[in-house]
Amino acid sequence: MTPALIALDWGTSSLRGFLMDASGAVLDSRASPHGITNLPGPAPEGFDLAFEALCGAWLQADPTLPVAAGGMIGSSQGWREAPYVACPADLQRLASQAVSVITRQGVELLIAPGVLADPPGGTPDVIRGEEIQIAGALAQQPSLAARGHFLMPGTHSKWVAVEGGRITRFATYMTGELFAVLRQHSLLGRLMPAGEEGHPDEAAAAFTRGLQLARDSHPGDLTRQIFAARSLGLTKQMAPAVLKDFLSGLLIGHELVSGLAAAGRDTALALIGDPALCERYATGLAALGAAPPRRLGNTAPAGLFHFARAAGLLATARKMTP
Amino acid sequence: MTPALIALDWGTSSLRGFLMDASGAVLDSRASPHGITNLPGPAPEGFDLAFEALCGAWLQADPTLPVAAGGMIGSSQGWREAPYVACPADLQRLASQAVSVITRQGVELLIAPGVLADPPGGTPDVIRGEEIQIAGALAQQPSLAARGHFLMPGTHSKWVAVEGGRITRFATYMTGELFAVLRQHSLLGRLMPAGEEGHPDEAAAAFTRGLQLARDSHPGDLTRQIFAARSLGLTKQMAPAVLKDFLSGLLIGHELVSGLAAAGRDTALALIGDPALCERYATGLAALGAAPPRRLGNTAPAGLFHFARAAGLLATARKMTP
Repeated sequence: MTPALIALDWGTSSLRGFLMDASGAVLDSRASPHGITNLPGPAPEGFDLAFEALCGAWLQADPTLPVAAGGMIGSSQGWREAPYVACPADLQRLASQAVSVITRQGVELLIAPGVLADPPGGTPDVIRGEEIQIAGALAQQPSLAARGHFLMPGTHSKWVAVEGGRITRFATYMTGELFAVLRQHSLLGRLMPAGEEGHPDEAAAAFTRGLQLARDSHPGDLTRQIFAARSLGLTKQMAPAVLKDFLSGLLIGHELVSGLAAAGRDTALALIGDPALCERYATGLAALGAAPPRRLGNTAPAGLFHFARAAGLLATARKMTP
Repeated sequence: MTPALIALDWGTSSLRGFLMDASGAVLDSRASPHGITNLPGPAPEGFDLAFEALCGAWLQADPTLPVAAGGMIGSSQGWREAPYVACPADLQRLASQAVSVITRQGVELLIAPGVLADPPGGTPDVIRGEEIQIAGALAQQPSLAARGHFLMPGTHSKWVAVEGGRITRFATYMTGELFAVLRQHSLLGRLMPAGEEGHPDEAAAAFTRGLQLARDSHPGDLTRQIFAARSLGLTKQMAPAVLKDFLSGLLIGHELVSGLAAAGRDTALALIGDPALCERYATGLAALGAAPPRRLGNTAPAGLFHFARAAGLLATARKMTP
């Protein structure tokens, strides 16, 4: 029950802190909206202000607590850039390439790097923050470490392959952002009433119709199929309130078709993320005939704990408290 | 040389008028920015104002001139809705289903309907204005009437199949709009410097790389591949100024892959539209190994002329001028 670590999941739009003991149990947690694009003051002081507001009380009680952080805080727009490490990457590699920043109050913050995949003949891809969630997931589900695929849906969905405990490759799908910009900024959104939800059965049917179109699609069909989110409305074949569900099913379906093909159908799939969104993805996977995925909760705290341990932060902390 | 018809190509963002003789030759033309979403006053008077500003002098010289119009002016947001006619559709069908509106000065304006494709088991699609361009193209290139495919690139690209002189099916690709919203409203645009053009060779190489990714893509890959327009910039593998060319090649490539598969590789393809954009599409077609398309200029005036003749407007005009 003695605090041994402060772990920070510091992203673009939010900051979450966890006070953990030496076994990795979460003793206390706090959250603030001070993601790196929403600091309480101009950088770099804004980072100090956000950090002190979240962790001040914890550090007052024990100023020797080590602090580990992951996520966009290590990006080029973050407090200090932690350059990407190349695939294949494991926890030891992440820990050895971490960078640290000293706060204005003299606290050392260790920041995890992101990971770069740059396959020959392909295009590069990057993750930052997801590698920490994976580390936590592998700690919780060691059976996935041998060979597994992690799907983290969101604004930018990440599909991450793990083999032999190492991240070997991954891909980013802009599904969530594409849905948002099409709805807010394209002609498709004009027929979609803002804030109105359709009847749940109708919404589910529209979502399924989008999934089916994706399942039956040929290369290049997406930019044609999204127009159906307008023409189905124009011709009154689909209620305006569920056109967004159709578009969601279509975009998620395309991601799943491509992601499953790349992952290999026999690979164990685990879903990490917002429960409502994971539910939509699980529905989509079922519609495509994929095996039910495992579902994991928030694995970031466990991942930060194991990252800190791999970096030797917990040993150091124990040494410093007599 | 005697005026016999006023033909109006009245779209969303512009209005173009053509004064034509009884042989279809254009005697005079005028254009205004008064598309249906940019009228000089509130509807319906705004339509009258736009019409009078463009055609007033022509009608003053000959108040008996018939007037034919096509495009979004016949949509539900237009002056009067000309409901879609179903595929297969030919000029006679368009003429017989036209609607008319009487201006406040008593002039009758005949508006062409759009066309609806609603294949069993598929999703509906619509065109409005393109059917007029096709009518003009078929008048100019009768050999395409037996069996041809028309590609009209733009905000919403249209691929229209013609068999036996009739529009039999078509598809809309949201390529241009998708490019615009991704560039203006998504994270991808953040790395693209506004208004900056890359070196022409670099831009061409980036465009080609996008085309190649599209050519080699599997179903569902697009939302993953567009993220490369960020990761190639982040990793400095592509200059920021040409990331937009990469994205353009990728999106046009996806449209071409899908459209060519649907059209059939042996079908004669004709490009209609803005010359610079048609040039990009022709480059894309060549990269995908397709036969060089025919290129047609602005076929809307000829299409409106033949629409008016099919509707009997020219005969009427001749009768009214003694």
